[in-house]
Amino acid sequence: MSSNRGVAYAGPGRVEVIDIDYPELVLKDGPGVNPANVGRQVPHGVVLKVVATNICGSDQHMVRGRTTAPTGLVLGHEITGEVVEKGRDVEFLEVGDLVSVPFNIACGRCHNCKSGKTGICLNVNPDRPGSAYGYVDMGGWVGGQAQYALVPYADWNALRFPDRDQAMAKILDLTMLSDIFPTGFHGCVSAGVGVGSTVYIAGAGPVGLAAAASAHLLGAAVVIVGDLNKERLDQAHSFGCEPVNVADGDPRDQIEQILGVPEVDAGVDAVGFEARGHGGGSAAREAPATVLNSMMDVTAAGGAIGIPGLYVTGDPGAVDDAAKEGALSIRIGLGWAKSHAFTTGQCPVMRYHRPLMKAILHDRVQIAKAVNATPITLENAAQGYAAFDKGAAHKYVLDPHGLIGSA
Amino acid sequence: MSSNRGVAYAGPGRVEVIDIDYPELVLKDGPGVNPANVGRQVPHGVVLKVVATNICGSDQHMVRGRTTAPTGLVLGHEITGEVVEKGRDVEFLEVGDLVSVPFNIACGRCHNCKSGKTGICLNVNPDRPGSAYGYVDMGGWVGGQAQYALVPYADWNALRFPDRDQAMAKILDLTMLSDIFPTGFHGCVSAGVGVGSTVYIAGAGPVGLAAAASAHLLGAAVVIVGDLNKERLDQAHSFGCEPVNVADGDPRDQIEQILGVPEVDAGVDAVGFEARGHGGGSAAREAPATVLNSMMDVTAAGGAIGIPGLYVTGDPGAVDDAAKEGALSIRIGLGWAKSHAFTTGQCPVMRYHRPLMKAILHDRVQIAKAVNATPITLENAAQGYAAFDKGAAHKYVLDPHGLIGSA
Amino acid sequence: MSSNRGVAYAGPGRVEVIDIDYPELVLKDGPGVNPANVGRQVPHGVVLKVVATNICGSDQHMVRGRTTAPTGLVLGHEITGEVVEKGRDVEFLEVGDLVSVPFNIACGRCHNCKSGKTGICLNVNPDRPGSAYGYVDMGGWVGGQAQYALVPYADWNALRFPDRDQAMAKILDLTMLSDIFPTGFHGCVSAGVGVGSTVYIAGAGPVGLAAAASAHLLGAAVVIVGDLNKERLDQAHSFGCEPVNVADGDPRDQIEQILGVPEVDAGVDAVGFEARGHGGGSAAREAPATVLNSMMDVTAAGGAIGIPGLYVTGDPGAVDDAAKEGALSIRIGLGWAKSHAFTTGQCPVMRYHRPLMKAILHDRVQIAKAVNATPITLENAAQGYAAFDKGAAHKYVLDPHGLIGSA
Amino acid sequence: MSSNRGVAYAGPGRVEVIDIDYPELVLKDGPGVNPANVGRQVPHGVVLKVVATNICGSDQHMVRGRTTAPTGLVLGHEITGEVVEKGRDVEFLEVGDLVSVPFNIACGRCHNCKSGKTGICLNVNPDRPGSAYGYVDMGGWVGGQAQYALVPYADWNALRFPDRDQAMAKILDLTMLSDIFPTGFHGCVSAGVGVGSTVYIAGAGPVGLAAAASAHLLGAAVVIVGDLNKERLDQAHSFGCEPVNVADGDPRDQIEQILGVPEVDAGVDAVGFEARGHGGGSAAREAPATVLNSMMDVTAAGGAIGIPGLYVTGDPGAVDDAAKEGALSIRIGLGWAKSHAFTTGQCPVMRYHRPLMKAILHDRVQIAKAVNATPITLENAAQGYAAFDKGAAHKYVLDPHGLIGSA
Repeated sequence: MSSNRGVAYAGPGRVEVIDIDYPELVLKDGPGVNPANVGRQVPHGVVLKVVATNICGSDQHMVRGRTTAPTGLVLGHEITGEVVEKGRDVEFLEVGDLVSVPFNIACGRCHNCKSGKTGICLNVNPDRPGSAYGYVDMGGWVGGQAQYALVPYADWNALRFPDRDQAMAKILDLTMLSDIFPTGFHGCVSAGVGVGSTVYIAGAGPVGLAAAASAHLLGAAVVIVGDLNKERLDQAHSFGCEPVNVADGDPRDQIEQILGVPEVDAGVDAVGFEARGHGGGSAAREAPATVLNSMMDVTAAGGAIGIPGLYVTGDPGAVDDAAKEGALSIRIGLGWAKSHAFTTGQCPVMRYHRPLMKAILHDRVQIAKAVNATPITLENAAQGYAAFDKGAAHKYVLDPHGLIGSA
Repeated sequence: MSSNRGVAYAGPGRVEVIDIDYPELVLKDGPGVNPANVGRQVPHGVVLKVVATNICGSDQHMVRGRTTAPTGLVLGHEITGEVVEKGRDVEFLEVGDLVSVPFNIACGRCHNCKSGKTGICLNVNPDRPGSAYGYVDMGGWVGGQAQYALVPYADWNALRFPDRDQAMAKILDLTMLSDIFPTGFHGCVSAGVGVGSTVYIAGAGPVGLAAAASAHLLGAAVVIVGDLNKERLDQAHSFGCEPVNVADGDPRDQIEQILGVPEVDAGVDAVGFEARGHGGGSAAREAPATVLNSMMDVTAAGGAIGIPGLYVTGDPGAVDDAAKEGALSIRIGLGWAKSHAFTTGQCPVMRYHRPLMKAILHDRVQIAKAVNATPITLENAAQGYAAFDKGAAHKYVLDPHGLIGSA
Repeated sequence: MSSNRGVAYAGPGRVEVIDIDYPELVLKDGPGVNPANVGRQVPHGVVLKVVATNICGSDQHMVRGRTTAPTGLVLGHEITGEVVEKGRDVEFLEVGDLVSVPFNIACGRCHNCKSGKTGICLNVNPDRPGSAYGYVDMGGWVGGQAQYALVPYADWNALRFPDRDQAMAKILDLTMLSDIFPTGFHGCVSAGVGVGSTVYIAGAGPVGLAAAASAHLLGAAVVIVGDLNKERLDQAHSFGCEPVNVADGDPRDQIEQILGVPEVDAGVDAVGFEARGHGGGSAAREAPATVLNSMMDVTAAGGAIGIPGLYVTGDPGAVDDAAKEGALSIRIGLGWAKSHAFTTGQCPVMRYHRPLMKAILHDRVQIAKAVNATPITLENAAQGYAAFDKGAAHKYVLDPHGLIGSA
Repeated sequence: MSSNRGVAYAGPGRVEVIDIDYPELVLKDGPGVNPANVGRQVPHGVVLKVVATNICGSDQHMVRGRTTAPTGLVLGHEITGEVVEKGRDVEFLEVGDLVSVPFNIACGRCHNCKSGKTGICLNVNPDRPGSAYGYVDMGGWVGGQAQYALVPYADWNALRFPDRDQAMAKILDLTMLSDIFPTGFHGCVSAGVGVGSTVYIAGAGPVGLAAAASAHLLGAAVVIVGDLNKERLDQAHSFGCEPVNVADGDPRDQIEQILGVPEVDAGVDAVGFEARGHGGGSAAREAPATVLNSMMDVTAAGGAIGIPGLYVTGDPGAVDDAAKEGALSIRIGLGWAKSHAFTTGQCPVMRYHRPLMKAILHDRVQIAKAVNATPITLENAAQGYAAFDKGAAHKYVLDPHGLIGSA
C-alpha cells in the first residue's frame, strides 16, 4: 500500500524505473526539490493512484542532459488518476473521483491565478512564477510518471470527470487534457485560429499534432503541418492535415502549392529551441531560431503566431554563446513589417481543459487518434523514452496499474 | 493657386524646401514612386490645403541616409488640412471640411481594411501590405510636408472635425491624431495597459511621450518613462510621469525604487532598432536589441509588450550583418519563461483616431502639451529636422500657411 | 437585355413575379423607396445577373401583411450573382466576377462601417441606421429576388469568390453567405458558443438550422434545437442536433434528459417576435416573449443569449397594445439573477462571410444540406413562399437564370 | 473580546444595532441562514475586525420590507477589515493584514470561479449560483455591518492592502472596493465605455456616482448623469459630470442640448427595478421598466447597455402581477432595431478590485469624494439608513471601532 515506483532521470540519455516514496501530504526533500519548498505542508492536496501519465517532449530536454536536472529527479507532469486520499482542506473532491491534473501547478490564491494565469502562479515555485511536476527548476514537486502522485491545491487544480465508466472508456483521449491538448489548443487560440483560417503548424510531434486537431476543432479551413520526420507527417496526414516536409525545402513554396498563396492566416511554432534547419543534408543541423523565423515568413501580414514550443533561458548545450543564454537571432524586422503578434509561454491548462473534456466526451474530437496515443507499462518507460527520442510517431501513455490495457 | 512647396530629402543629413507639383487627382511619377503606381487615378481623393504637418522620428531614418530613399522624395505623413478639391467619387466630405489624415494609406475595400487592419491595406502599395505618405518603399504617395497634399480614398481615410473653429482652437492637439497619438495609444493598448496598470515606456521622444499621455488616459496607476536624454525626461516628468535615465544604469533597479518591485505590468518599446545601450560611456553605442530585451527584463510574467518603435527588414548602416537584414539577438527564452506576448507593426490609426479626437475636444487629454508641440514655418523645416535630430524635446509642427501661429 | 423580372409583394398573403425595371446605376422611385433616396446616384455600384437569391423568414413578415410594406415592393435581400456592369468608381471588381452580397447595405465610409458595424450603416437609410434590399422602411433599395439587381458600394459590400467553377459547384452552400449562415453564426458567437459548449437553439427554421451548423463548426459539444414543427426538427436531427419538440412541454425538462442538467451554456433565439407558446393545444397561440423568456430559463447562470430572431418596433397585428409597439413582458429579473448578457440586432454579415466562405470551399461545413437548400425557378417563387409559410423544412433558393438546376 | 454588535433588520422601515455572536470558523444557525448551510465549517476563513462597512442601496430593498428577509437578519456586504484570526487552511494572509472583501462570496474552487465569474459561484449558496453577506436568499452568510465578521475562502476572496498606514490614510476610498466602485466600473465596462466615449448613467445614487467616476477613469469624453434628486445631481456635477434632471422631462432632449445629438455611445442603468417615471408630478410613480426603456432610447445604435442596477425575480410590493415575478414591459423591439447588447447581474468584484485599488493608491481617482463618503458610528446606523432612504447625497460608511474618524 505504501510502496511506489516512478521514472527517474539517471543521467544523460537514461531513465530508470525505481522505488520512490509513497506520497504524503507534505513536500519532502529529494532530487531537485527547492530548499525553500522542503517540508511544505499540503493539507489542500490529494494523493492520486495514477491511471495514465504521458511522456512529453519537454521531459526529453532533461533526459538528453541539456538541463541542470539532478539524477534521481522523478519525471512526469502529465497526470490523470483516481483520488485515493484527500487532505483535510479538500472540500469538493472525494476519494474515488477520477481527475485530470494540469501540468502547471497553481495555488488558486495569488493574483495571477485569480485572473486565470495559472501558468505563472506566484506561490508554488520559490524561484520564479510558474511551476510543473517533475521538472528541473520548477520548485521540486515530485513527478507523476509513477504509481502514486501528490497533487497540491487539489480543489483548484484537478478537473473531475463526471462519470467514471465513461471516462475510462475514453481514457486515452482524456489523458491528453493534462498538457498537450490544451497546449496545442492554446497555440492555435493565441495564433488567432478560428473558423475559416488557414494554419501552418511547425512540428508534427505530439504538441504539433494536438495543435492540428485543435485547429480542426476550431473550424480552420486548411491545416498544414511541417516537419522533417516522414512518419510523423504521415500521422498528420492521417487525420486530414496537409503535410509539408521541410527537408524538401522552404515551407513557403509548399504552402503556395497547397493554398495558391505562400502564406497562411495563422502560425503555430510547436517545435521551440531544439529546431533544425530546413532543407536536407548539412542544413538540418540544430538552428534554434529557424522555426520562429520561418513562422514570420509564412504567416500573412496581420497574422498572429502562437509559440507553445519551448524556448529556454539557459541551454548549456547550445550552438553558440548567445543561444546558451536563450538569445536567438530573430528577424524581428520582418515580423514588424507584417504587423505580427507573438504569444509565448506555458499554456494555462485550466483555461481550456473543461471545454476540451466536453468536446472529447461528446465525440467532437479524436485527440488520442490524432497523436497516436500508445499505452505502455510503467516498467517499460525507458523503451518509450528511447523510441520517442528517435522520432517515433507515438504519444506514449504510461499505464502504471494496468488499467488501460497497455501491451 | 497651382503652386506648391514641400520638404524633400536632399541626401544624408539634409532636407530642402522646394517647389513641387500642385496635387492632381492622379499619382504622377516622381522620386520614390513605385512604377506600378505611376498614373494611378484618384477620383476617390481630395486635395488638402495643409494646415499642420509634423516631423516624425521615422522621417529621420530616411534623412539620416539609412534607407534607400532617393533624393527629391517629398517627406511627411502626418497631415491635417482643409479640403479644397474633391474627386467625383467622394461623397461624404465637402470643400471646406477640416480633416485629420491617418499616416497609413488604406483603400477601405480590401479584406484587411474591412477587418480594421488599415496598417496593412492590400491595395495601395504594389510591393507589400501597408503604405504611408512620403515614405521610401511604401508605394510612392507624395509626402504631406507641403502646402497642398493629395489624400486618396478620402471618404474612408479622412476624419472630419465636427466644428472648424473648435478644431482650429485645438489644432496643435488634433494634429497629433494623424500618427503619434494613435501610435502611442496603440502601443499601450497592445501592451494591455488599463486602469491601475504600472507601465514602463522606453523612449521619451514624441511617440514615447504620446504613449505616456495615452497610458494616463487609459487609467494607468504609474507611468515610468526611460530615456538617455535629460531634456526629454524632464518633458515626461512635466506631466506626471516618473523618469528613468537609462544612462544611470539598468532600468530594472530604478523601477524598483519607484514601485517597490522591479517589474511593471506592461511595457511599451517606443524606440525601435536605433536603440543605444544602457549605462553611460561606451555602453551607449547603437545596440538595436537593447530596448526589446530590456522590456522582457522589466515586464512582469504574464505581461504584454507593445512595440510601436520601428524595426526594419533592411538597415544598410547596421552594426552587423544580421542587423542589416533586420535580425537581432533577442532573449526569446526570457520572454517565453515569463509568458510574454508581443505586438508589432504600424498602428492602424483609424481604429483610434475618432475616440481620441473626442477625448481632445472634451479636454480629457493635453497631448500637444505632453509632446511639447512646437509650430514652425514650412520654410524652416530644415532647422526643425536638425534640432529634432539632436534630441530636442519638441514635436515640430510645420505650419505651411501660417494658420497656427508659428514663430 | 434590358428586361427584368422580380418577385413583388401583392398584398397580404400574396407575391407575384412581375416585370420590373432593369437596374441602372441610380436608385429610382418605386414602391417603398424613401423619398430622400430617390435619384441617388450609384457610380460605386454594380449590376448583378442574379445566380441565386433565397426566400427568407423575414420576407414573410411583410408578405403576411404585418408591416406597412406597400404593394409592388420588390422583395429579396439574399443575393448572389455575376457582375455584368460596374460603375465608374468600382475599382476592385470586374465584369464576370461571381460575388456574394451581404443583406445589410453599407457604405464603407461612415464610422459604424469603419468599426465593422455594417448592420447599422449611417449613410444608406435616410430614416435610421441600417438598411437591407427589398425591405420595408429600409431606404428602398430594390429587392434581389429578380433576374438582375443593383448593389451599391460594391467594392465594399461584395465578396468575390476566388474561382468561378469552384463556386458554381457549391453554389447552394455559398448562397447562404448573404444572410442566414452569417446570421446563425453571429447568434452563436454572441451567445458565446465555443469549443465544448452546450447550446440550445430556439427555432428550427433556416436561421435556427444555420445557427446549429455554426455551433458545430465552432466546436460545440452538444447542439439542441427546439421547435414545434416535427419536419423541421427531423431536419435538425439529420445533421447531428438533438431535437426538442416544445409542443411536448417545457424545453428545460427535455434538455435535462439530454444533458443530465436542465441548462445549457449558451442560448440562441432564432425565432423572434412571432413566437408561439410552448406546450400543445391552446398554449400554442402567438406569445411574442415566450422564446426570450425561455432562453433565460434554460441558459445557465453566466451564459449569454444571442438574439438573431427579429423583434420589431411596430407590429400592427400584435396580440396586445404593448406588443404593437414592440414592448414585451420580459423576465428581466430572472436574467439579472443569472448574470445573463443579451445581444440583439442585424448580423453584420461582412464580419463573417469571408471566413465562412473559406470553410465552405474547403469542405468544413455543409450548410446547404443543413438548411435543406432547395432550388426553384424564379417564376415559381409564389409556391415557394406558400410552402415556406406552411412550415416546409426547406430553404428555397430562387434560380432566376436556370444556372443552378432548379426543378 | 468575544462580544460583537451588528446592524439587524427589525421589520419594514427599521434597523437596530444589537448584540450578535462573535464569529467562529463555522456558519451557525440564525435569521436567514439556509438550512443546508447551517454548521458549515470554515477552516478557510478569517475573522475580521471590521474597519469600515458601508450602507448599500440594495440593503434598502430589504429594509423597505420588499423582500422575504426575516427580522434579525444581520445586514451588510461591504466589508473592509483587519485579520484577527485565521483558519488553518488560510495560507497567504496573516493576522494584522488589512483587507477588502468582495460582496460576492466565492469559493475559488468551482468552474465559475475558475473562469472569473465570482458573482455566480456554485458552492456558497445552496439555492442558486451567487451569494453575498447579510442578504436574503443568498445562503445566510452573516452580514458585516458589525464589529467583527467572518469571511470564508479568505485566501481567494480577500484583497490585501500592501501597506497598512497608506491604506488607513485612504480608507474612505478603499472601502468602496468591496462593492460600489467595482460595480459602477463593471457597469461602464459592460456598456463598452472607453477612451472618448459619451456616456449616460441613469441614477446618481452611490452606484451611479461610482459609475460616473469609473467612466472618467476609463477615459470617457462626456459623462452625463440623470436622476430626479437635485442634491444627488449636484454631487455628480461636483466632479465634472453633466447633470440631467429627469423630472424636467425626457433625458433624450437634455442629452441633445449637451452633446448636440440626442444619443450617447454607452448607457449604464444604475437604478434597477425601483425606478420611477420620468417627468414631474404623477409621472414620478414607480415604473420599473422606465430606466431600462429609456436606456434604449438614448443609447445610439450599436451601443451597449450595462445594467448594474438590480432587477429581481420576486417583488411582492410591485405595481402589477407581472412585476411581482420580475417580468417587465421592455421595448425589446427598439433595442433590436438599434443592435443593442445588454449585460446584467452582480459585478464579479474580484475582476476589478486589484486594479482599482492601485488606481486609488496612486491618486488616479477620488472615489470617496465622488460618492461623498461620510463616516458614522456603527451605533448610528439607523440614522444613516433613514437619511439614505430619504435620498441624502451621501454614501454612509459605518466605523465600528472609531478607526476612521466618524462624527
